[in-house]
Amino acid sequence: MRTIDWVDGAVELIDQTALPGRLTVLRLDTVDELVAAIRRLAVRGAPALGVAGALGVALAAYRAGDATAAVRRLEHARPTAVNLARGVRRAAARLPEGADAVLAEALAVRDEEIAASAAMANLGADLLAELCGARPRLLTHCNTGALAAVVGGTALGAVLELHRRDALGGVLASETRPLLQGARLTAWELGRAGVPYRVAVDGAGPFLMARGEVDGVVLGADRICANGDVINKIGTYAHALGARRAGIPFVVVAPESTVDPETADGAQVEIEDRGADEVLSYGHAAARHDGRPAGEGGTVDAVNPAFDVTPYELVTAIVTERRVIRLDRGERV
Amino acid sequence: MRTIDWVDGAVELIDQTALPGRLTVLRLDTVDELVAAIRRLAVRGAPALGVAGALGVALAAYRAGDATAAVRRLEHARPTAVNLARGVRRAAARLPEGADAVLAEALAVRDEEIAASAAMANLGADLLAELCGARPRLLTHCNTGALAAVVGGTALGAVLELHRRDALGGVLASETRPLLQGARLTAWELGRAGVPYRVAVDGAGPFLMARGEVDGVVLGADRICANGDVINKIGTYAHALGARRAGIPFVVVAPESTVDPETADGAQVEIEDRGADEVLSYGHAAARHDGRPAGEGGTVDAVNPAFDVTPYELVTAIVTERRVIRLDRGERV
Repeated sequence: MRTIDWVDGAVELIDQTALPGRLTVLRLDTVDELVAAIRRLAVRGAPALGVAGALGVALAAYRAGDATAAVRRLEHARPTAVNLARGVRRAAARLPEGADAVLAEALAVRDEEIAASAAMANLGADLLAELCGARPRLLTHCNTGALAAVVGGTALGAVLELHRRDALGGVLASETRPLLQGARLTAWELGRAGVPYRVAVDGAGPFLMARGEVDGVVLGADRICANGDVINKIGTYAHALGARRAGIPFVVVAPESTVDPETADGAQVEIEDRGADEVLSYGHAAARHDGRPAGEGGTVDAVNPAFDVTPYELVTAIVTERRVIRLDRGERV
Repeated sequence: MRTIDWVDGAVELIDQTALPGRLTVLRLDTVDELVAAIRRLAVRGAPALGVAGALGVALAAYRAGDATAAVRRLEHARPTAVNLARGVRRAAARLPEGADAVLAEALAVRDEEIAASAAMANLGADLLAELCGARPRLLTHCNTGALAAVVGGTALGAVLELHRRDALGGVLASETRPLLQGARLTAWELGRAGVPYRVAVDGAGPFLMARGEVDGVVLGADRICANGDVINKIGTYAHALGARRAGIPFVVVAPESTVDPETADGAQVEIEDRGADEVLSYGHAAARHDGRPAGEGGTVDAVNPAFDVTPYELVTAIVTERRVIRLDRGERV
């Protein structure tokens, strides 16, 4: 099953907000529907977003009229992952040749991500086996499996490949607040694959590393800057600090489509703030749903950066479908 | 209002699991009821637990028969905070003198914690003003306010004192998964006090420090070891790593009753694991409540350490009601 695909003239995608409770496929006929699905994270993960953006341009191309406005809405549906805008621009470059050419380009983006997943799984598993010892216990954060990348996945693809090789000690899935992609999506994928895993709250990761329960950290990226800084799901940087202090490898697995040589470093990247509701919908539910904010007359606010910046010097290596970049040995992107 | 007190022959306490939705006072007549309340965190926070333990022995003393078994159940209701066992032992030492003597001792424990809160607020506010610059923006974790300490509080008491001095820039309340003591309890207390604050997911703390949005971290402790290692709510250690990397102060405010010279360092402390349900009750709700675990046939597991260990060398200073210990200057507990 593919996370996202072009089926009979429309985009079909698994609604990731409904997992693990329900496996639902959404059929989206218009760019507006697709932009809404991207914004509410029905589809997410850098590679999947690249495919979504490219397929969205195909949707626009098959409709009558000027696709320019639709292209712009798609490109800016979310700001942080470079893949979305890049997939949109790549497909949009074929607009002068007609809708069929746009679709062909979008399907090429899809097929390249599928091929990249397979290559990353192998390169990533090789590196993890080399760096983390026999049957490593690996911590991962957010979701980087098939759901994030059409099929296969990035970091989780490498973990699953280690499992197929019977060379994995287990997985610690960091729950990934506020939207629990780890607890909901990664746990679901690991369970289906029969991989032994435990979920942990995000704040426990560095301590479990210090206590010797983790042999390596492996996760994805939404953007990799020219200097090697990694933009990834909020909480990544804290895990990187924990890994450095514990002396264990910190490995990023992401396709070349995530590498952004035009962005010098992490300070240049716009970090999406997704608003207070995602954070407050759990703890403040009781206080908010009766219309009265917590406290007496005060309003409840939250800061909700969806991503963070991990400085390149905390990253052991970056694995793409083409190469292993050993930042710890001075290699650069 | 006191978090916990002795009222007409029974223990009354605010049910912290119901906040911020409902402010409910529980009346507990038996040790068994009190132990259950401690276990499910209806009362929590190291100083409040010390008072609960001492008052629990009074409950036992006024009942007929041997109090030994009840004392043991109270002492071991939770393992990590030293205050609970210490409060129990202190009151139990008066058992030979009769129930009234036990109660007098328990009330002394309560009154000492109240007095300690006031002293910590002043010493802590003085130190934060000195270390963190004018009108600092402070990050705190878990709940260390009046709810944790009869009245006043420890770390949050110092923050509120800064606010009373009109010398506080604002508070970032780390939500504190899995039980959201930050988002539920600290936010509730700050709202009632009119303090400007924002909630953040735990994984965002270190990144917000790196981005320059935090001038200092201030939080409590459940136990302070002889070497200065701090045992506190899970997530504390990750914040300490973030503070060190960002070059901002990391201050612990806790009463002398939390200092445990008999425990050499953090490695000696039993870290309570509170089981998978607390972690999985959010993300896996949909998958669990229909009886089917996430994945196909797999069972969902979680690791749930309730506390972590912050090595003393990451701590700038410890403030108690009697002293300021500048660990960063080589002073020791």
